Amino acid sequence: MKFCSQCGKSVSHRIPDGDNRYRYICDACDTIHYQNPRIIAGCLPIHENKVLLCKRSIDPRARKWTLPAGFLEDSETIAQGALRETSEEANANVEIINLYTIFSLPHISQVYMFFRAQLTDLDFSAGEETLETRLFEEEEIPWDELAFPVITQTLTHYFEDRKNDSFPVRSLEIIIER
Amino acid sequence: MKFCSQCGKSVSHRIPDGDNRYRYICDACDTIHYQNPRIIAGCLPIHENKVLLCKRSIDPRARKWTLPAGFLEDSETIAQGALRETSEEANANVEIINLYTIFSLPHISQVYMFFRAQLTDLDFSAGEETLETRLFEEEEIPWDELAFPVITQTLTHYFEDRKNDSFPVRSLEIIIER
Repeated sequence: MKFCSQCGKSVSHRIPDGDNRYRYICDACDTIHYQNPRIIAGCLPIHENKVLLCKRSIDPRARKWTLPAGFLEDSETIAQGALRETSEEANANVEIINLYTIFSLPHISQVYMFFRAQLTDLDFSAGEETLETRLFEEEEIPWDELAFPVITQTLTHYFEDRKNDSFPVRSLEIIIER
Repeated sequence: MKFCSQCGKSVSHRIPDGDNRYRYICDACDTIHYQNPRIIAGCLPIHENKVLLCKRSIDPRARKWTLPAGFLEDSETIAQGALRETSEEANANVEIINLYTIFSLPHISQVYMFFRAQLTDLDFSAGEETLETRLFEEEEIPWDELAFPVITQTLTHYFEDRKNDSFPVRSLEIIIER
């Protein structure tokens, strides 16, 4: 951030009076520009004993497999964002079962939230950011070709929890020192 | 938003090519300025059969009772944000038990997340945004003087769940038409 989005003057980067963190501050109009973590909402789409994965067409991690997910938009509920991304990336129709995994990723200021979701038909296909969509049984999961740790962990928990038919909400953290 | 934070030129508000939502766009440097929901993290601090509430000193809802909570900062885990706010608003020392309630508030593009937390001592007091801190038994809760619906719902679920000594994570939505 170099300029104030309110008045167009240059911003400085310093700790405001009464605060203890660096902020972008406009000394012309006194606006403090706070920056906050963003939420990525997605689904774990399920059909019988299979899960739906998407092969990414875009960076980061192009050609790796992922669950449909993306940035939550203003004015959406978390579930609405997860459904929209599932539709956009996999053209898939699902019904949400329950919130399942929540990840803090402080090194990139992101929070991921995945819902377990039931595919309501098999009419799915690759969206614009996807090369290929496919149902995988547990034994077929390309564990070495998954896009992100949040995907690996969500799938690992799912197949483990499925043995007990119990899927508690899991609040998790992925800590990467930088 | 009126000016581009990257180059300082005026922004326009329109739907970018290939998108379906209005965004602030800089026609000078082509930056698209996305806006996303923010997370408010907080605690439900517990001591024996009591919960700790804070009387707000600031608007909105000054002089109403709330749970300690505030905007999650960049580079924080959700739990770290909840602990920091509990320290800032109530000078309270707690240990987190578990994530408890999650609320989507799409009308204001916010997501609230509260953790159940155990007070580790009774050395709490009002922080800068707080007039008074106090432990309440269930019968003493000032239900008509609570600051926000997320507070009322979190406390209602807590006292109900306490009867069964079972506190499942609750994913909730507060929908207010505008």
